[in-house]
Amino acid sequence: MADCYSPVGVFDSGLGGLTVAREIIRQIPDERIVYFGDTARVPYGSKSKDTIIRYTDQILRFLDTQDVKAIVVACNTVSSYALEEVRDHVNVPIIGVVKPGARVAAATTVNRKIGILGTEGTVASGMYPRFIGELNPEIEVTQKACPLLCPLVEEGWWNNDVTFSVLHRYLEPIQASGADTLILGCTHYPLLRSAIREVMGEKVNLVNPAYETAIELRRLLTEKGLLYPESGENGKAEEKYRFFVSDDPERFCRFATSVLKFDIEKAEKVNIESF
Amino acid sequence: MADCYSPVGVFDSGLGGLTVAREIIRQIPDERIVYFGDTARVPYGSKSKDTIIRYTDQILRFLDTQDVKAIVVACNTVSSYALEEVRDHVNVPIIGVVKPGARVAAATTVNRKIGILGTEGTVASGMYPRFIGELNPEIEVTQKACPLLCPLVEEGWWNNDVTFSVLHRYLEPIQASGADTLILGCTHYPLLRSAIREVMGEKVNLVNPAYETAIELRRLLTEKGLLYPESGENGKAEEKYRFFVSDDPERFCRFATSVLKFDIEKAEKVNIESF
Repeated sequence: MADCYSPVGVFDSGLGGLTVAREIIRQIPDERIVYFGDTARVPYGSKSKDTIIRYTDQILRFLDTQDVKAIVVACNTVSSYALEEVRDHVNVPIIGVVKPGARVAAATTVNRKIGILGTEGTVASGMYPRFIGELNPEIEVTQKACPLLCPLVEEGWWNNDVTFSVLHRYLEPIQASGADTLILGCTHYPLLRSAIREVMGEKVNLVNPAYETAIELRRLLTEKGLLYPESGENGKAEEKYRFFVSDDPERFCRFATSVLKFDIEKAEKVNIESF
Repeated sequence: MADCYSPVGVFDSGLGGLTVAREIIRQIPDERIVYFGDTARVPYGSKSKDTIIRYTDQILRFLDTQDVKAIVVACNTVSSYALEEVRDHVNVPIIGVVKPGARVAAATTVNRKIGILGTEGTVASGMYPRFIGELNPEIEVTQKACPLLCPLVEEGWWNNDVTFSVLHRYLEPIQASGADTLILGCTHYPLLRSAIREVMGEKVNLVNPAYETAIELRRLLTEKGLLYPESGENGKAEEKYRFFVSDDPERFCRFATSVLKFDIEKAEKVNIESF
């Protein structure tokens, strides 16, 4: 039975969810985390809703074996396509990144124009516009699917001429819309933040849903009496955080180390299809 | 029991193998084809050898249910990482694209310098250099992994400013090597042929392994008495060619229609993980 000392489960289609884990670690440093990245089947962004739901159910069954006290869906595509469908399949609280991202963007925009960058799946699901519309139906939303941004981040091209020509193309409709607020609606995109900032200019607010998601996680854990007791001590990262992937742990560790800024020396491989 | 009237099985991690199917259709138009694209788990290029072998075995078990008379591995990553490992798992002849590609490149180069573009997996496997070295150890090989090219093709950006900035970066070490022959070592890359030609110039030979693979398939089928009897008639494409995918048949049909130049109206979805 999970209690406040149990870990939080965080999962993503692959590496991108590490930007969400990073934010949780920053805001609630006492929490233990079990991270799962589905690196054998990544990316999810161009796959169908049915497939995303099937994969998500397998991951939830794996996380169940890790005795997690709550689950963070650190993937916009899964949060968009699968979260509502699978919510009843788990016995612990589960939150995604889309609703928190929509909430902070709706609270931030002054001219009531919001832009959204996301995967093909996230955009096709229409969940960001739906949540924003529920908060304020007067807000105008412009979405743009950006299938090249994840491979660009994983290639390590965060700030070169290719990055900028790709961004100029993808950001054009957002700029044309006059949006004053832009949601980075895929967990890879915060890693392109400075390049996106350069193209969009200083005046546009860039929203990273991870930030608000970590706040919501803390609120939820507090409400359920599940927040890890504050220790004032940092503890060793290798004891507090455990990483699981469905493929190529070494590659994952290299990328995770570059995102999390501490050494990730070990990730365990899981045959996720068997769950 | 498969005979000469049985179909040829052609498979790929997703859509790219259609360029190989296209070449088989062009060169041996009487053959029936069963195509499988693993669109639920694409891409393979950045995944590990173990995972590629596991996925390949599942696909071979599926193709076995289709009573194929021969199998073409229309994926450079699978041909590099898995072909030798799985050859004994099937009872029909099986060929890949790497050996034919290496053979034609070795026969083409005059200055004994060959360049290779491929996925991370294909490059890491070292199979192209190995096969080329077996044919002529004096040939100097320069490889370059190009993880952004597949997403670029699938985004439909075959010829814009992004295509050219990406190609300039990837082709730089090939140009520096002085290679007079360049293998397009991933089945997506022939779709970027004209852009690659523009960057590399007219003097470099671009090798599409699909061409030589179709020749080898014909030779193999003839040798085994399995070549489909020449009819002189074309037959209806929808009767001769069947398409199977693990995800999103509609998306596959759109892309296949653009590659094959005839209407692909139907692809069937297969739960490949169950094989």
